[in-house]
Amino acid sequence: MTQDLRGHRILIFGGGGFIGRHVVAKLLASGAAVRVIDLMAQDLADETSAGTLDWIVGSISDESLLASAAQMCDAAVFLASNSLPSSANADFAAEITSHLRTAVKAAEICDAQGIQNFIFASSGGTVYGIDSATPIPEHSETRPRNAYGVSKLAIEHYLRVLMALRRMRTLSLRIANPYGRGQVASRGQGFIAAAMEHAFNGQPMTIWGDGSVVRDFVYVDDVAEAIARAVAYGGGHDAINIGAGVGLSLLDVVSRVEAATGRQIRLEIEADRPIDVAVNVLDISAAQIELDWRPATSIEDGLRETAAWWAKASR
Amino acid sequence: MTQDLRGHRILIFGGGGFIGRHVVAKLLASGAAVRVIDLMAQDLADETSAGTLDWIVGSISDESLLASAAQMCDAAVFLASNSLPSSANADFAAEITSHLRTAVKAAEICDAQGIQNFIFASSGGTVYGIDSATPIPEHSETRPRNAYGVSKLAIEHYLRVLMALRRMRTLSLRIANPYGRGQVASRGQGFIAAAMEHAFNGQPMTIWGDGSVVRDFVYVDDVAEAIARAVAYGGGHDAINIGAGVGLSLLDVVSRVEAATGRQIRLEIEADRPIDVAVNVLDISAAQIELDWRPATSIEDGLRETAAWWAKASR
Repeated sequence: MTQDLRGHRILIFGGGGFIGRHVVAKLLASGAAVRVIDLMAQDLADETSAGTLDWIVGSISDESLLASAAQMCDAAVFLASNSLPSSANADFAAEITSHLRTAVKAAEICDAQGIQNFIFASSGGTVYGIDSATPIPEHSETRPRNAYGVSKLAIEHYLRVLMALRRMRTLSLRIANPYGRGQVASRGQGFIAAAMEHAFNGQPMTIWGDGSVVRDFVYVDDVAEAIARAVAYGGGHDAINIGAGVGLSLLDVVSRVEAATGRQIRLEIEADRPIDVAVNVLDISAAQIELDWRPATSIEDGLRETAAWWAKASR
Repeated sequence: MTQDLRGHRILIFGGGGFIGRHVVAKLLASGAAVRVIDLMAQDLADETSAGTLDWIVGSISDESLLASAAQMCDAAVFLASNSLPSSANADFAAEITSHLRTAVKAAEICDAQGIQNFIFASSGGTVYGIDSATPIPEHSETRPRNAYGVSKLAIEHYLRVLMALRRMRTLSLRIANPYGRGQVASRGQGFIAAAMEHAFNGQPMTIWGDGSVVRDFVYVDDVAEAIARAVAYGGGHDAINIGAGVGLSLLDVVSRVEAATGRQIRLEIEADRPIDVAVNVLDISAAQIELDWRPATSIEDGLRETAAWWAKASR
């Protein structure tokens, strides 16, 4: 099922992050030459297999570094973000500088350097409105409820206009809630990682509202495969949902994490946050048609692998 | 018909521009105290009547200046923009810094200073998609075709989220193509101003395609009245169209300008620009309901007044 990407040279912005590490491994396994630009040094030794890896430590705000990194690459994947829903809401202008402008500038530099395909990791959980259908198709109304989603959506629009006016093809993947090996819960992101952490450390876990909120959780290996397919995409879509296509309530996830880990999680209920959408499940039929992609990992398998990683990490 | 705004103190970002000067005059005539922040010094001597005018010369990128300017004001109107469709398309990242971030930062400062209403001059001609209905209601798909429209739309979204999360009410007015006294054609903006200029200077005028493109032209006095009503708006809408609600083809406008000026315009036809929307006419029923506003100036009256201004300016 993995793509054959021999002959491709692919630049990954933020290749050292949670999704990035899986994407790098997937692209290397597909035979691509991979160049990473990331603030952190490489520590992927045991995950690399075939292909060539070139790792540049540096800031994606460094425009001359970006321009030289983009040389000789034919595709780029933008995964870099120090942005989170919580920090973005606290300071919109800072979010615009650190996330929105940085991503758009990176795309402009890639276009100028002759890169042909630019893949942007957007957010299926934040760009749509509160009244969306279930599951949500890509043509639904886009009406973000937080500043993080506004910046993701604005980047999508800039990339679409860039594709219309200049040379580079751009594609935004609206990724649902990714989970899997290597994800650490931080500041409200990564519900499954948080549940894993609490299962292993025994501390009580705070959940939103009554736990009935439904989200679309997609295994990170499947996300990496979708990105590997997008790298060589030649179709006309500019935004494609990447998710499981089915929803799980937070309470349901907690029980499944308990089953996968064999440990109990103590819950503490907190009042509803005002901006939560009750149900967010993505319609993934466009990904099937356009990228010949569908999620290959069941929630049981995904949680089992994730629990095994946490068991090892907690020792 | 003019609002009574006695007791209000209103901050105008960009009060020295084409729309800004008319807004300042309208608000002063309504009895408001007006504070302008603009790069240019005041030269409105003959247009001010009642009310108090306080004019600050400075950059809206100067955040401490903004914070002190916003003190003691209860509403703000954001008209400042050195952005144009042509320059925005050439450098997206520069557009993000100079226009998008500046507007959002100004709104955050206004909110922090206790301003209650923030009115943003958005663009009815660029935020919608190419397949919009005629006339276009506000709930239509937003799919800008140039970077200028992307930044306008992104500002709208940030303001809507700001209103949901913080204290300040925000309202985006999606203004059609404004025209009238004081508008000078520049870099592709202001078709009526360009036609007036060519009528008076006798030079041949280049028009897009075959001149059949239809736009919604709204008289600047009517725009100023809409903004004066928006300043005290207490309803729940976050974006409202402001236009004539009817369309005119560019060739039709040329004939009407010839009639209003008594002069002929020589036309030069150029090939279609690829990103033009054939018809863009706004549905203005929300403005009628929410702001009790409708355009009061016929195209004949508006062009007659505009022609009189040009006749005087060309002497």
